[in-house]
Amino acid sequence: MDPLKELEKYEEFLKIKPLYWDDEANEFVWLDTRLLPFKEVYRRTKDYRRVGVAIKDMEIRGAPAIGVSAAFGMALAALEVNTKDVAEYLDKLKEAKDYLASTRPTAFNLFWALDRVWNVIESNKDKGVEEIREAILREALTIYVEDIRNNIEMGRIGSKLIDDGDRILTHCNTGAVATAGFGTALGVIRYAWYEGKKIHVITTETRPVLQGARLNVWELTKEGIPFTLITDGMPGLVFKRGLADLAIVGADRIILTGHTANKIGTYMVALAAWDNEKPFYVAAPTSTIQATADPSSIVIEERNPDEVRKVMGQYPITLPDVNVYNPSFDVTPPKLITAIITEKGIAHPPYLKSLKRLLQQ
Amino acid sequence: MDPLKELEKYEEFLKIKPLYWDDEANEFVWLDTRLLPFKEVYRRTKDYRRVGVAIKDMEIRGAPAIGVSAAFGMALAALEVNTKDVAEYLDKLKEAKDYLASTRPTAFNLFWALDRVWNVIESNKDKGVEEIREAILREALTIYVEDIRNNIEMGRIGSKLIDDGDRILTHCNTGAVATAGFGTALGVIRYAWYEGKKIHVITTETRPVLQGARLNVWELTKEGIPFTLITDGMPGLVFKRGLADLAIVGADRIILTGHTANKIGTYMVALAAWDNEKPFYVAAPTSTIQATADPSSIVIEERNPDEVRKVMGQYPITLPDVNVYNPSFDVTPPKLITAIITEKGIAHPPYLKSLKRLLQQ
Repeated sequence: MDPLKELEKYEEFLKIKPLYWDDEANEFVWLDTRLLPFKEVYRRTKDYRRVGVAIKDMEIRGAPAIGVSAAFGMALAALEVNTKDVAEYLDKLKEAKDYLASTRPTAFNLFWALDRVWNVIESNKDKGVEEIREAILREALTIYVEDIRNNIEMGRIGSKLIDDGDRILTHCNTGAVATAGFGTALGVIRYAWYEGKKIHVITTETRPVLQGARLNVWELTKEGIPFTLITDGMPGLVFKRGLADLAIVGADRIILTGHTANKIGTYMVALAAWDNEKPFYVAAPTSTIQATADPSSIVIEERNPDEVRKVMGQYPITLPDVNVYNPSFDVTPPKLITAIITEKGIAHPPYLKSLKRLLQQ
Repeated sequence: MDPLKELEKYEEFLKIKPLYWDDEANEFVWLDTRLLPFKEVYRRTKDYRRVGVAIKDMEIRGAPAIGVSAAFGMALAALEVNTKDVAEYLDKLKEAKDYLASTRPTAFNLFWALDRVWNVIESNKDKGVEEIREAILREALTIYVEDIRNNIEMGRIGSKLIDDGDRILTHCNTGAVATAGFGTALGVIRYAWYEGKKIHVITTETRPVLQGARLNVWELTKEGIPFTLITDGMPGLVFKRGLADLAIVGADRIILTGHTANKIGTYMVALAAWDNEKPFYVAAPTSTIQATADPSSIVIEERNPDEVRKVMGQYPITLPDVNVYNPSFDVTPPKLITAIITEKGIAHPPYLKSLKRLLQQ
């Protein structure tokens, strides 16, 4: 099916459109999430390097959104390079791919999306430049629409784990603005809400970049879903006092053992749920799953120390130049994860078996 | 011994003097910790109500500092009330005590210090106003000097648990500016440093009030102790990666079972240490220990939601008026606590036995 045709079917689920392809202008358009919740600013470009900057500087963030944007970056590169020589064309595209791959080292979806586009290039390289260009564009749109379809399906499947009245704790933003649309963990929450379940969301603020205080608050307010904002040190007490029934988070990378790399602090949220015997769910598309069983293969990205020294990129909270450690992710071990929700179904422990089975479907 | 005479002995340990009694002006003087690390401003008053405001608004914070300040608040009340009638005098003092007790509900040292002053009043009530006044002043000074003495002794005892080269994780400020001087958990760290141990401190920023980013950074910089600042979601990864050897924190209240109320987030730090088989120590004077074995007796103070909505009391990080839960403390269960360091010695599990024994010494 034509991806843009399929997209029309999902309109009711897409109240928030964080990124899309402008088919008339041949431009990629995205919401600058750094300015939320105070300003809603869309940016557009024809330049794949600008997409790279948007990913690096976290105008676009969230593993699926990064993957989709990188694919559109390749589409922009495909349109930009002006040659009839296929070898030269491929060289330039390889340059664009390498550049885009260098922007966020932990985001597995980034490499996954770039590899998908590259496979299409490879399988069309006997054809002319025009055919390759068309194939790249179509693949980027396919990845985009697939992400939305997967998120809605993940929401439908994951919502079965949510009861009417549940108070759901989440960490970091995994909503519409972390994906091509709808969201992963927040997509599950959103689906439950659309089904009429009376839920209440408890979101951490998620330091240092405050995705909870800025993005979850913005999305939940837009949807009218009731919520409470807490700091990253509070989930322990929240679970201990019986104020949350479950936790659900997203993932930047899952490996076959179930080890899940996600926003820094996730591991501690999982410990808090676990010590109080509450379910801890991960929701992520199967594109997040890396076919390895070696946790040491997970690279933890360290970001600019000023993210910690300053808040909202501008307000100093400590002395300048103090020594800072700013890892962006941590790894939650499988023993703390009750289940992993994907668009293909729910994986339960032992994950080595269940995740492999899901990937083979 | 005259408390002010004894104080001279501790001079070398008191590089930072967060609060003291001005014996000539009959005024209480304190460092406004809200302005740290950017400005060092001392404030002074003759009015006990102003001391209450300073405690409530967290110009003065940290359980021991609150207790000592409340005692000095009583001294100010004792000087202020102008009557020869003992019954009237006691009525006015009772008013001051009730007011000061209402400022911070979780700080056990607050009630402990006020009760100590009150006991002195009770045992002198057969005498004249002048004698009662003198006894109150002396008791406040005694409580002040005792806190410093206890902290130094706690440091000496606790430092035995710290090896040369240790990387020590701490949460919230428990240093000089949380006490009458020297500090509790940070006092142990300080003592180890004074002994020449090459340590490295990892401090959380401690949202929402940022005691780590503001106060620990200020104190550690002043002492020249090397440190690294992290956010509250990072201790899990720090322990998992073997970047910290132990955790040490303070306490606002400890009960006989070992349940420890301390700054929100402490429980999650304890879980992070525990899941990675690293020691988790609590350092607090025995005045923090409440003679009850009922964890439900611990009141958790909830503070102004704007502490979460804004950073540093002024910078908005989210939409105004969003729903916030802002508990100031959580309770760490004894199973996660390796040992409790006090000025009378170290208590090991089972705490019901060891803490009772310490209290009886």
